[in-house]
Amino acid sequence: MTEIVAVGGGTGTPVVLAGLKKNPQHHLSAIVAVTDDGGSTGRLREEFGWLPVGDLRQCLAALADGESSDEMFNLLFYRFGGKGGLKGHNLGNLILTAFEDIKGSPGKAVAAVAKIFRAQGAIYPVTENIADLIIDYRDGSQATGEHVLDDHTRGGKTITKLSLSQTSQLYEPAKKTLLTADLIILGPGDLYGSLLPHSLVKGFNQALAKSTAKFAYIVNLMTHYSQTHQMSANDHLTEVTRYFGRQPDYVVVNNGPISPELLKLYATEKEYPVKNNLSDNGPTKIIHGDFVAQVAIRLDSNDEVRRSLLRHDADKLATCLTGLI
Amino acid sequence: MTEIVAVGGGTGTPVVLAGLKKNPQHHLSAIVAVTDDGGSTGRLREEFGWLPVGDLRQCLAALADGESSDEMFNLLFYRFGGKGGLKGHNLGNLILTAFEDIKGSPGKAVAAVAKIFRAQGAIYPVTENIADLIIDYRDGSQATGEHVLDDHTRGGKTITKLSLSQTSQLYEPAKKTLLTADLIILGPGDLYGSLLPHSLVKGFNQALAKSTAKFAYIVNLMTHYSQTHQMSANDHLTEVTRYFGRQPDYVVVNNGPISPELLKLYATEKEYPVKNNLSDNGPTKIIHGDFVAQVAIRLDSNDEVRRSLLRHDADKLATCLTGLI
Repeated sequence: MTEIVAVGGGTGTPVVLAGLKKNPQHHLSAIVAVTDDGGSTGRLREEFGWLPVGDLRQCLAALADGESSDEMFNLLFYRFGGKGGLKGHNLGNLILTAFEDIKGSPGKAVAAVAKIFRAQGAIYPVTENIADLIIDYRDGSQATGEHVLDDHTRGGKTITKLSLSQTSQLYEPAKKTLLTADLIILGPGDLYGSLLPHSLVKGFNQALAKSTAKFAYIVNLMTHYSQTHQMSANDHLTEVTRYFGRQPDYVVVNNGPISPELLKLYATEKEYPVKNNLSDNGPTKIIHGDFVAQVAIRLDSNDEVRRSLLRHDADKLATCLTGLI
Repeated sequence: MTEIVAVGGGTGTPVVLAGLKKNPQHHLSAIVAVTDDGGSTGRLREEFGWLPVGDLRQCLAALADGESSDEMFNLLFYRFGGKGGLKGHNLGNLILTAFEDIKGSPGKAVAAVAKIFRAQGAIYPVTENIADLIIDYRDGSQATGEHVLDDHTRGGKTITKLSLSQTSQLYEPAKKTLLTADLIILGPGDLYGSLLPHSLVKGFNQALAKSTAKFAYIVNLMTHYSQTHQMSANDHLTEVTRYFGRQPDYVVVNNGPISPELLKLYATEKEYPVKNNLSDNGPTKIIHGDFVAQVAIRLDSNDEVRRSLLRHDADKLATCLTGLI
């Protein structure tokens, strides 16, 4: 049994999990960022004061057991319409929020829901402490909250520093998993929104340093206007190494073609392919390959539509990652 | 395999299911009344216009698979606090409501949720048509909506007629189950709120008449002030036979003792033990026995607290019912 830990959040880490779970020789864990504060997640966080649940839900869906996974996808991603107080709420978020209340611990809440859904792997919040992201820009301005990282009006600005509004402690089971892993996979995912925040949680970098696991970083396919505008693959890697204090053993970077139609669509949002300027450098091995998903994926959840148009291919990634062990 | 169908709703039918499911020789189905219009169920019905889900949820919980049934109970019965639009909503109701929207059919919605929860049996709404209960009283007054049957201010009045506000058709899979069953169990449950409404659904009585299954009726332990005040066991049986057009083959009636403390508590609500004045009569066999639950049950769901203080014992009922086949 190989212990594999996927670190991230958003829509990237679920792709990694979905690909790797097909191999019964893998025991999977996900360590998920919990600084999300937008949409239904944000409203729940504001009203109930618990940890944000959106990214945890995505990983749950990815790890759901095959037999009834279609129904579970329905359940976790359903969004209420109507005209009352339910409008806009996502059912998966409501379920996780309820269990946070029942269990009194976000980590135990996710474990309980994972049990109900027969998740094929463990899912941990990186921390049980609530904190906001604080973002410093090169122009001297500062902003608070992960949602600003999706705010187009702040696009094109260079982020110089990411920090947390208060101290967060690494969730103990997540720490254990990092220490016993054979492979730790960071990304793909929003660099400043889903990946680097892990490094700000107290204890994370220490566990990563202590772990004998191989450390692999998957570079995003596209830049993100309000986060990584004009950043090359090497710029991404430099930030990862700077924040995590450990140079990845492997960097997985795409060199596969992306359709001109998609490129045009992304360009309207000022998002472009990450320039691949990496080559092997010291202990870090660079893995170039075609990792672009060729298939359309389900688009029935409102908040997934745009983000999911272009993504890494779960199976291509899984094949590559399995080769690293 | 013995095909057993439990007909009813509320908290009675789940007790029957919970007892019988322990025997792997039983294949269970539940046919559930859908005229409930109070509480969270009523609010959802008003906002989304779908079938009421409260009683279906209770049966789902009763049939949930053992391994994670505690977590499923948590899930289905959680009630949101907070201060926003979620307040008072029950999570199980929200899940069923979401699936009614996804599936476009209440019956298919319940089947999907049952699949996720690995329910050990089938659960069918008696009809997919929405209708309100109309209640005529001996004093000439009329009221609409199942919730009035719990309205103490209408207590002590005799109900002379129950009808539906519009034609409802028996749900086809429920009909098939009735026709192929070996044993059909009616009750326990609110006579006018959960049991007799089935007989008003077009096709139900015809299927019941055609079925070669034995038909057993379980008399409630206590009268209900706003439904069955001062009605004896024989009065209950007379109403069942009148509405369903088929005399039960068996009537199960309690003669076990009820603690004086509970009797006193119920008396403050003007509820008293149903007087057992039944004896074998023609084709109907009367089964007297001690069916009172001796154990306290979980009371963590607000709306269950009072109703659940006294109830039939699942195992005693199961033993008795299994003997009828």
